[in-house]
Amino acid sequence: MEVLMADREVLLFANEVFYQAFANRDIDAMQHIWASGTPVCCIHPGWDAIHVREYILESWHSILSNPESPTIHCRAAQVVTWGDVNAVVCFEQIGQSFLIATNLFVQEAGQWRMVLHQASPTSAKPPTEDDVGAIN
Amino acid sequence: MEVLMADREVLLFANEVFYQAFANRDIDAMQHIWASGTPVCCIHPGWDAIHVREYILESWHSILSNPESPTIHCRAAQVVTWGDVNAVVCFEQIGQSFLIATNLFVQEAGQWRMVLHQASPTSAKPPTEDDVGAIN
Repeated sequence: MEVLMADREVLLFANEVFYQAFANRDIDAMQHIWASGTPVCCIHPGWDAIHVREYILESWHSILSNPESPTIHCRAAQVVTWGDVNAVVCFEQIGQSFLIATNLFVQEAGQWRMVLHQASPTSAKPPTEDDVGAIN
Repeated sequence: MEVLMADREVLLFANEVFYQAFANRDIDAMQHIWASGTPVCCIHPGWDAIHVREYILESWHSILSNPESPTIHCRAAQVVTWGDVNAVVCFEQIGQSFLIATNLFVQEAGQWRMVLHQASPTSAKPPTEDDVGAIN
């Protein structure tokens, strides 16, 4: 039930790949980060849970192709490790507002890929830029 | 990466134990359902993530001992299985409003115990009472 420090870095990188796909409106990268051979679940803020990969990717296509969609930055990411399944919990900054997100990853063919994303409004704020990183 | 149907029932039962603890304002049961030897994380609606078990239980003590805290019913629970770590995704009904929650469980000494809870507002509603159960 432990992952090595190096794995934490790789998990944070996988999480960063997800937010880069978001920032770059890159549906191919978004498609790649979502696991393809493992059960998945996505809960956008205010939405129902989506349990089918095809529908999850459709939802991301709709979000990423919408020019009204906000730019999101990941802040204060923390890794929570349970071995084969691991979470990155982080803030999502949209202007001066924040969401809080749980992103779960499992390995497929040696790569950490997303199996669950839940983002929801929060009145909390990330500590400071200096605290960004894996501290759990 | 598969759990047996029997395990799904046991996971749904563990999830039910959590909501029974909530409904009964039973801090001992809440303490028991949260994993004690595994990293944990709890994100109440609108709150920051809590990563320390002691603080998570303090937050539940504060919620469960507050007579203003609403009564919550679990609706339309679905199991998402990744082997050692599994999720129950469900609606939380508060009067005519709903939250949507991800509850993660791992086994400790043969018992499924909670390692992550995130609940957030949703404008979605559970399908109907008939659809309650594990369908994923």
